[in-house]
Amino acid sequence: MSTEFMTEHSTEYKVIGTRPVRHDGSDKVTGKAVYTDDLHLPNMAFGAFVRSPHAHAKIVSIDTSQAEDMPGVLATCTSADLPDPWDKVDDLGEGCVNYAHLSGNVLARGKALYKGHAVAAVVATDSHLAEEAASRIRVEYEPLPATTWVLDAMKEDAPLLHDDLITHTLDDAPAKPSNIESHIRFEKGNIEEGFAAADVIVEREFKTATVHQGYIEPHVSVASWNEDGRLKIWTATQGSFVVRQQMAALLKMPISQITIVPCEIGGGFGGKISVYEQPVAAVLSRKCGRPVKIIMRRDEVFEATGPTPGSFMRVKIGATKEGKLTAGEAWLAFDAGAFPGGVIGPGCMCVFSCYDLPNAAVDGFDVVLNKPKTQAYRAPGSTHVAFAAESVIDELAVQLDIDPIEFRLKNAAVEGTRRVDGPVYPRVGLVECLEAVKNSEHWKSTLSGPNRGRGVACGFWFNAGLKSSVTASVNPDGTVTLVEGSTDIGGTRTSIAMQLAETLGISAEDVIPQVADTDSVGFTDVTGGSRTTFATGLAAHEAALDIQRQMMERAAQIWECDTGDVEVREGVYRGNDESLTFSELALKADSVGEAIIGRGAVDPQVSTNAFAVHLVDVEVDPETGKVTILRYTASQDAGTAIHPSYVEGQIQGGSVQGIGWALNEEYFYDDDGHVRNASFLDYRMPTCYDVPMIETIIVEVPNPDHPYGVRGVGEVSIVPPPPAIASAIQRATGIRLTDLPMSPPKLWRAINNGE
Amino acid sequence: MSTEFMTEHSTEYKVIGTRPVRHDGSDKVTGKAVYTDDLHLPNMAFGAFVRSPHAHAKIVSIDTSQAEDMPGVLATCTSADLPDPWDKVDDLGEGCVNYAHLSGNVLARGKALYKGHAVAAVVATDSHLAEEAASRIRVEYEPLPATTWVLDAMKEDAPLLHDDLITHTLDDAPAKPSNIESHIRFEKGNIEEGFAAADVIVEREFKTATVHQGYIEPHVSVASWNEDGRLKIWTATQGSFVVRQQMAALLKMPISQITIVPCEIGGGFGGKISVYEQPVAAVLSRKCGRPVKIIMRRDEVFEATGPTPGSFMRVKIGATKEGKLTAGEAWLAFDAGAFPGGVIGPGCMCVFSCYDLPNAAVDGFDVVLNKPKTQAYRAPGSTHVAFAAESVIDELAVQLDIDPIEFRLKNAAVEGTRRVDGPVYPRVGLVECLEAVKNSEHWKSTLSGPNRGRGVACGFWFNAGLKSSVTASVNPDGTVTLVEGSTDIGGTRTSIAMQLAETLGISAEDVIPQVADTDSVGFTDVTGGSRTTFATGLAAHEAALDIQRQMMERAAQIWECDTGDVEVREGVYRGNDESLTFSELALKADSVGEAIIGRGAVDPQVSTNAFAVHLVDVEVDPETGKVTILRYTASQDAGTAIHPSYVEGQIQGGSVQGIGWALNEEYFYDDDGHVRNASFLDYRMPTCYDVPMIETIIVEVPNPDHPYGVRGVGEVSIVPPPPAIASAIQRATGIRLTDLPMSPPKLWRAINNGE
Repeated sequence: MSTEFMTEHSTEYKVIGTRPVRHDGSDKVTGKAVYTDDLHLPNMAFGAFVRSPHAHAKIVSIDTSQAEDMPGVLATCTSADLPDPWDKVDDLGEGCVNYAHLSGNVLARGKALYKGHAVAAVVATDSHLAEEAASRIRVEYEPLPATTWVLDAMKEDAPLLHDDLITHTLDDAPAKPSNIESHIRFEKGNIEEGFAAADVIVEREFKTATVHQGYIEPHVSVASWNEDGRLKIWTATQGSFVVRQQMAALLKMPISQITIVPCEIGGGFGGKISVYEQPVAAVLSRKCGRPVKIIMRRDEVFEATGPTPGSFMRVKIGATKEGKLTAGEAWLAFDAGAFPGGVIGPGCMCVFSCYDLPNAAVDGFDVVLNKPKTQAYRAPGSTHVAFAAESVIDELAVQLDIDPIEFRLKNAAVEGTRRVDGPVYPRVGLVECLEAVKNSEHWKSTLSGPNRGRGVACGFWFNAGLKSSVTASVNPDGTVTLVEGSTDIGGTRTSIAMQLAETLGISAEDVIPQVADTDSVGFTDVTGGSRTTFATGLAAHEAALDIQRQMMERAAQIWECDTGDVEVREGVYRGNDESLTFSELALKADSVGEAIIGRGAVDPQVSTNAFAVHLVDVEVDPETGKVTILRYTASQDAGTAIHPSYVEGQIQGGSVQGIGWALNEEYFYDDDGHVRNASFLDYRMPTCYDVPMIETIIVEVPNPDHPYGVRGVGEVSIVPPPPAIASAIQRATGIRLTDLPMSPPKLWRAINNGE
Repeated sequence: MSTEFMTEHSTEYKVIGTRPVRHDGSDKVTGKAVYTDDLHLPNMAFGAFVRSPHAHAKIVSIDTSQAEDMPGVLATCTSADLPDPWDKVDDLGEGCVNYAHLSGNVLARGKALYKGHAVAAVVATDSHLAEEAASRIRVEYEPLPATTWVLDAMKEDAPLLHDDLITHTLDDAPAKPSNIESHIRFEKGNIEEGFAAADVIVEREFKTATVHQGYIEPHVSVASWNEDGRLKIWTATQGSFVVRQQMAALLKMPISQITIVPCEIGGGFGGKISVYEQPVAAVLSRKCGRPVKIIMRRDEVFEATGPTPGSFMRVKIGATKEGKLTAGEAWLAFDAGAFPGGVIGPGCMCVFSCYDLPNAAVDGFDVVLNKPKTQAYRAPGSTHVAFAAESVIDELAVQLDIDPIEFRLKNAAVEGTRRVDGPVYPRVGLVECLEAVKNSEHWKSTLSGPNRGRGVACGFWFNAGLKSSVTASVNPDGTVTLVEGSTDIGGTRTSIAMQLAETLGISAEDVIPQVADTDSVGFTDVTGGSRTTFATGLAAHEAALDIQRQMMERAAQIWECDTGDVEVREGVYRGNDESLTFSELALKADSVGEAIIGRGAVDPQVSTNAFAVHLVDVEVDPETGKVTILRYTASQDAGTAIHPSYVEGQIQGGSVQGIGWALNEEYFYDDDGHVRNASFLDYRMPTCYDVPMIETIIVEVPNPDHPYGVRGVGEVSIVPPPPAIASAIQRATGIRLTDLPMSPPKLWRAINNGE
């Protein structure tokens, strides 16, 4: 597959824009990379959970005695073994966390709030024994009515999950406890006047199902709580320092008593930021005096981690007959799962983020109900709202008979556009992405044949800044070791190393990157929020400049001239009529002095935005309701594509996940609030047989706030697929589906019953 | 036990001089510290060696086919699997290494040069299978005459080990191949005139036996040679970067393709600098595609690693009747084991190093013979020569009837004294150590009773500088993580952390030190040469200053003042009428910006010297020849004792090892050149039942070239025990023994036969 590029950036880069083999590639494909479950510590014991069989129940009693009497069982624990929770709230970079709630999610306190909620745990000398012992822990429950649909949970008479949950209302009016944790409202302009100026208004209601991040590797950790009070945890996480913060808060101990070792991670997508089994492994280790490994089964992963909210959304947008948007209104209810703190915030910020909408209002509700606590999932909240807003935009284009790309181009957000939640865009690349699709061979091609349709949709997501740290040391052979705090999920070892290499004028292969534990590198926020290649890349650039300064000093020392007389360009140092390449100088530098170490730490106060525009051709089988993706093209503004293959990979991976949301993925809840498809056999994710090769167009509108113009690329491509596919289905069948997933049964019913 | 101190240093330190619990203490005593043998990698295989049963033999053929046919056997290797050796020589900080010889020592090439010399190796799915397979590798030998005594090996008709070994003579005269690798000669003044001026001249000959470093943990490593060519080795070593250099040279690959992970180390004493099993584990890993662990058996450790040279020495010293030394002459022959490169160099430098000797000449010979290649062992070479020189000095004192301490005080090396090999001493503390012993309660006490005697002796050793690197990061809770390249054998995590803490004005417990792998920290030389607390402490001090500068900038930012207006004293930052402790500022700094990271890299071009003076009371059992140590006092100049408990520990550990050399330890070689006591059952090391508590006097004459006055303390206390005990035996029995060890049979014979 050839990549299309549409670039504005300098073409003088030597390393950036090339496609070196990833540094961890060989280890990954040969099975030598060390994942947490590969760890075997001497004397290690194994933990297992007892989980609630009820979606909502009072925990009357827990009797661990039978389990504890079993030979080989070392200890048990319940929420009583965790310190009393309290209301400390931290911003972890991908959303705030309330530690009382987090503690209650780790081990249920008084009530089980969803099927699969952890209630107790046990540790034994082997994992089978631990499972057996878990089955012998007797928990007496008093079942309570449960609810798993967001609108039901908002009702006055809905079963209350938390007695003390008072809605954070817009005014300070007192409110009685409810399942509605918060109500967000954003306004811009005057929506009454805006809708009055519209020639056409479309208003629709949308629903989305709960879906899971679906990472291959389940949650797993090994904890060793030593006799001197120091706790070490090896785990699969998106952010080792964030796990350290959560562990310190949950266990009420200083962060400096805890070391988190991030092992290789088999996918996260936002779902490996919160802790689950880690605190339990730690407590069990303290109680039994051994290292403890806990690995969650797949059904536990589905039932008790992840997922993304189910949602109900109502979106109304008006436009003039010339195709100019006049006003938009959105009413969004997202479930948060069993504890507050869902992704309604970004949902509200994203719903109209692609357009220059003069008048807008957004209401958002964060609602608790008897499902697992929701977590971030790739552009969290944006996929939901794009399905609603882009479907309405598309319907407006249809009603106004305007080409859907042209309609978007007329209204696209540009530099200077103010979003409904306030911020004004810096230079962004939505127009360029739309133009790229418009100029694509795919768009110019003709789609013919019955039951076929073509859809287009836009997507938006933020790029966070946050803190990143690296150190780097020069080897005498001219290579540079790089220690970074960012866990590597999608190839960031290489995308960060390439920026260090570019700045130093060496090759990507001459950098040896390594993800370090929390005692070995400065504080670094999560790998999430599309920030890592941007912010940790910036830190690597700073470390490279620090090294370069020292190399110039060393060159001056060797050449017996002033440092000011040394120049460097593309890795060649010149001064006093002499010149040395980086590696030549590294060898000489080693022979005359101490090691050269660079450090880089950043906390960029700027952030930027990523836009994507997707184009899809589908064919609907009217006999079964099955949708086949015929062709798929995804354009995205990468700012500057450091490693184009990884940008393509992110675009393709995000697109395929979005296709999963669009067509198949959902938790099937029964009336008792049980997930009935908690396995990869029954939870239908797309496979390579379900999708064609995703064609990518990398658009490069450099980010002015990064030395190499980087924008984060990891998330936004999950956003456009549902509305793009919905619009394509509409073109193929005349039917606009408003309920995700648009699975064969739903589409078949719509085709056959006129739903 | 209370420590005596004799100090000249500032008493204003808050952390230095205190005795915090060592950071790795709990892990060590609870068994949680990870030693190499604790590693279990997925799919790991196990290696075993085939070793020569002959002390000297031509290898006619090696047939590995029977072993390779065994189910579970994965691969075999011989020297043919190592790249052709070549004559690259590196200075590893504790002596130079010739890689052709190192390669030949790792796996014999053509000839086996000592009993236990590795000839081949095999890897299998378990270690028992590997041992069995090793026994099925058929090696055909053609035995050759062998020699294990240095004077025999120097003879013209001695069996030649290497056909191409030409003595590096003092002149350029051609020489025919011999076992004498080098002849060193140092001269000062005019020894003829010096001896002519003497009233008394004593000349004696001395012998020392081969002894082993005797670390508890045998050599062990795990190697994983990955498909992309990267090699990772976990091993017990004194210097991870030095292992990296050796591996790169032996395997002819770039250093940057190799990562060395230093695991905890169960003792080294100089014997864990050279590689043994590591290259073999690597080659086997490459051949079988799995991680490979090799752990050496204790008999392999005795027969094929370590030991220190056996030696023959002749020393002649003259003095005036007033007790002033006039001249000294030494003729020293040290064996190097099977390959050249022994410790004759430092032996020659040390022999007269304690005294201001106006005229001196030293001849030293490095001799190969059929014993394992010798290695550094705590103050390598100095223990040998001190036995000779201090015994002669003592005999002079006896003949002149001068108190042995007063005699030494008359002649002690001081600032400005020039050593026979050239260097002039900076401020040193020998006189202070002698005074400390003279003023000790022990010296003032009366020793009475039959067969009892008191001896005193001095010792000298160098402190190396060399390269060290650290990085350090500030946690928001005011603690600081410290990443260092120096492997921690004797508590250096803490002694280095304490220097960082002192500079920053925080507590030792607020530093979290960690020994990192070669990809995670800048180049750092071996933990050896008494350099680590000195040089890596200096690097930590630099990192602390780097942090302090940034903390001052951050404080200025918070207080909105100029950085120049911020002051810091003992960890309290003041400016703009405000003040914050380090930890308060750390928290605020975290809230306003990026992580604070400090770096420190040093390559000190200064080095210093350590002196020790020991005092011992013994009682000899004339019936058995057994010597009982009644009381032992060791004084040593520590410069500044960072952690006095560790200084005491080093003094005590060195003293006990020296007592082992003095009284019991030796390799028993039979006529075939086989060691007959290659086990801890038969190789007699002192236990806690053999020695009283060693009383210590820490003398503190600060090193002017270190901000905290540190001198290395790890080695010199092994030096004085043999001559101190020999002199004590002389006082008890009238017999001066000149042959180490002064074991019961030897002393019994001397008492009974007048030997």
